[in-house]
Amino acid sequence: MTVESPRHRAGGGRDARRAARLAAHAEHIPFLTRELKPYEVLNEEGLATIEANADTILEEVGIDFRGDPEARETLRLGGADVDGDRVRFPRGMCRQIIQASAPKVFTQHARNPDRTVQIGDPYTVLAPNYGSPFVRDLDNGRRYGTIEDFRNFVKLAYMSPYLHHSGGTVCEPVDVPVNKRHLDMVYSHIKYSDKPFMGSVTHPERAQDTVELAKIAFSGMGDDYLDDHTVCLSLINANSPLVWDATMLGAARVYAENNQATLITPFILAGAMSPVTAAGVCAQTLAEALAGMTFVQLVRPGAPVVLGSFASSISMQSGAPTFGTPEPALVLYVMAALARRLGVPFRSGGNLCASKVADAQAAYESAATFQPTILAGVNFVLHAAGWLEGGLAIGYEKFILDLDQCGMAGVFVKGVDMSENGQALDAIRENGPGLHFLGNSHTLANFETAFYRSEIADNNSYEQWLEDGGLDASQRANKIWKRMLNEYEAPPIDPGIDEALQEFIAKRKASFPDSEV
Amino acid sequence: MTVESPRHRAGGGRDARRAARLAAHAEHIPFLTRELKPYEVLNEEGLATIEANADTILEEVGIDFRGDPEARETLRLGGADVDGDRVRFPRGMCRQIIQASAPKVFTQHARNPDRTVQIGDPYTVLAPNYGSPFVRDLDNGRRYGTIEDFRNFVKLAYMSPYLHHSGGTVCEPVDVPVNKRHLDMVYSHIKYSDKPFMGSVTHPERAQDTVELAKIAFSGMGDDYLDDHTVCLSLINANSPLVWDATMLGAARVYAENNQATLITPFILAGAMSPVTAAGVCAQTLAEALAGMTFVQLVRPGAPVVLGSFASSISMQSGAPTFGTPEPALVLYVMAALARRLGVPFRSGGNLCASKVADAQAAYESAATFQPTILAGVNFVLHAAGWLEGGLAIGYEKFILDLDQCGMAGVFVKGVDMSENGQALDAIRENGPGLHFLGNSHTLANFETAFYRSEIADNNSYEQWLEDGGLDASQRANKIWKRMLNEYEAPPIDPGIDEALQEFIAKRKASFPDSEV
Repeated sequence: MTVESPRHRAGGGRDARRAARLAAHAEHIPFLTRELKPYEVLNEEGLATIEANADTILEEVGIDFRGDPEARETLRLGGADVDGDRVRFPRGMCRQIIQASAPKVFTQHARNPDRTVQIGDPYTVLAPNYGSPFVRDLDNGRRYGTIEDFRNFVKLAYMSPYLHHSGGTVCEPVDVPVNKRHLDMVYSHIKYSDKPFMGSVTHPERAQDTVELAKIAFSGMGDDYLDDHTVCLSLINANSPLVWDATMLGAARVYAENNQATLITPFILAGAMSPVTAAGVCAQTLAEALAGMTFVQLVRPGAPVVLGSFASSISMQSGAPTFGTPEPALVLYVMAALARRLGVPFRSGGNLCASKVADAQAAYESAATFQPTILAGVNFVLHAAGWLEGGLAIGYEKFILDLDQCGMAGVFVKGVDMSENGQALDAIRENGPGLHFLGNSHTLANFETAFYRSEIADNNSYEQWLEDGGLDASQRANKIWKRMLNEYEAPPIDPGIDEALQEFIAKRKASFPDSEV
Repeated sequence: MTVESPRHRAGGGRDARRAARLAAHAEHIPFLTRELKPYEVLNEEGLATIEANADTILEEVGIDFRGDPEARETLRLGGADVDGDRVRFPRGMCRQIIQASAPKVFTQHARNPDRTVQIGDPYTVLAPNYGSPFVRDLDNGRRYGTIEDFRNFVKLAYMSPYLHHSGGTVCEPVDVPVNKRHLDMVYSHIKYSDKPFMGSVTHPERAQDTVELAKIAFSGMGDDYLDDHTVCLSLINANSPLVWDATMLGAARVYAENNQATLITPFILAGAMSPVTAAGVCAQTLAEALAGMTFVQLVRPGAPVVLGSFASSISMQSGAPTFGTPEPALVLYVMAALARRLGVPFRSGGNLCASKVADAQAAYESAATFQPTILAGVNFVLHAAGWLEGGLAIGYEKFILDLDQCGMAGVFVKGVDMSENGQALDAIRENGPGLHFLGNSHTLANFETAFYRSEIADNNSYEQWLEDGGLDASQRANKIWKRMLNEYEAPPIDPGIDEALQEFIAKRKASFPDSEV
């Protein structure tokens, strides 16, 4: 009798220590190369309509560029109509300027050349959580983030074979003054990791500090290395609806002038910062992003720029941001298609959730964004690991759970192996009806790479699981991150460069008083 | 300053009682109609190669039809070569027979006509978990299922606007003798729900009992109603690799002879019951399914038949089934495409997991199957709610959590609304830069339907969540299923029919002794 409830075989020995070894087995690849076509939810006509609507918004309503007369003058010289803060763009102007100079794909160099990433199609780069003031772990619960937490997450991201990027503000190190913490954050990325990283955007001077630190970090590559090598990628968010503000414009200008990359990202809680409907969110996002990218290309034609989209829904009862709902997934698919049509790399997605803890809600919500992220073919993925509470917190256990999903994405995007070995016709011929395949020579030949091996899933029998303590996924993740931090070894860094970095930081910190803004 | 960590607004009052009311708000639709194209992971050439390989398997290796000489004779008369148990099929024979008579889409009638479903493209029907001997809830942990549990899950599935089908063996009622429990199960589906249901397959006589009970249930529709109306859909699993056994063939024959539908499903743990590679799993699955569907069409041309695929990976260390890995997702996408090319409805997927509890593992794993289920365009989805432990257990809390995902799928498949209201251009024109959309007339006009409202997600602020008890998703789900069972009201049933059903069951039960096989 054949039923759909297979008896599990007893677990083959203890897996407790296996997880720690898995990182070593996993192939360290610097970024994903997708073999699969992106999923499309809108046809040509629908996409063209949204593009036309974005042009209508840019032409009729316009975008405010606030507090930065220089930015407005740049746009005016580029062909826009400026009226006070308001900047209106003739139809097609933004598209033309962006397509004339923005790269379709660019390289972000890491200080370890093996970690250098390609940003654009058909590649996907996964980066950790960004911007959370709080951290959470099972032992200590929720608390403000510190520079030690920051370093911990940089170390965990460095150790994971499934993250390709060190990220930026993985958490806010609240124990360091606001106006100086960017120095410690950028230094941590350079010192404790050798993967590519993001810079500060909270003030133009902090962006400039980032560039200076990057110049020191890459000083071994010769003078003016940054002038034709992008080593920083930084997050420039719009103040939706339809506003770019002076802080973000100032930071974007610094990075563009230095040929460093920016993620030009409308951050939209639909219903609060845009209309509630997906097509409305997309048109507004595209308009805002086109305006921001146009500014960057006018500052320095050819400076790498990424079209970003961060869209979530809200609770219509409380106004709270919600995650994992179907509407933002539709927006994500549409925005990815619009970026492809424009011909620029696309940033969106991540393992986003509203849950306060790393429970089933967190995982279901995260998957509801992360799977579209992968299927839409997002090129740069911020928040791929750790995000909790709508971004207010980063969780240690959530980080580990998300890494596993990142690892699976790497297998999925390779698609179906149609080689002779993949087709396995001889294996079926050799095996015949009614006999299991465990000892089949094809099975044995493919033993090592047959299936993705999760570091965190418990697939043992119920009895074995009970005997192992009956732990849930969070409790197992707790053990893994502690073991990883315990086993962390810093990547080598030139002592002279390290000293120069520290010297720069000490000098800068001494040159102005602490401040909490 | 714009950062990616929005402050949550404080929760707007207690949501505790809101969840119970949501079922009433949610639109009761009898099945999903997909507006989106299915996602494809293989091109025409790849799919044609797998079809050719399936034909090679059918022609060269063949399929064992064991213990059922009548089935072999049926196949021989249909054109197959029979050699002992082994049946070999000339290339193209199965496809030709199936395409000549199997319906592309068929109707499964429910005793409430409003719950009648369409099975085939572009529809998706979601049904609960199937076949678990154990049940789990937060209060009592894991234990053997009982007929009371069975009834509970039938009631919960009936109450949910997001399940379209009552399913079959939602759990094994272990407190009822094996050879009589099918009577109680089928009766429970008819009595406690008015959604369509599945029949018994564990013995041809039990299949016949199912048909007899269905005839009584639909006796109000006239004599011989079943002869041209399908009211049962039953799960016929292959004994992979490449074996169909007498139990399943006997049940399939009974259903086919009575014009009732079958899900012809190779159930494959890749590496144990097939090669480890996706293309190998697909070729074998297609070969097994083609042989089974051919048998059904030869028994009664035109009897509704569904191509099924259940494929999971295994742990290469322990042999335990694993779920949520990327390889079975690739298989699912390919098999859906193969079913479309064949022109028959497709069954696969569900919210599958290996986790013992409804934790982050369970949710991540479930989403890794359920999202492909939806994107691949599966037509009939068993195991859409409740599955734990590789199918060994059904969880009450997991059931509730999964329902929420089913609800979201219903919104997703409708795609992007490109109506004027969806485009929302006037809303953006009216709003202008820098002003929020909460009071925008477009927002107010779309308030009720703007976003999917989760019954289970907590989107409140951290502080509010703490004040509400700091519950995780499982704990909230625990309250929801209890409240639902408390509020359950049975659908009306004709007292004469109910009496006739009970009379039939009593007579049958009295006619043979209890047995545990």
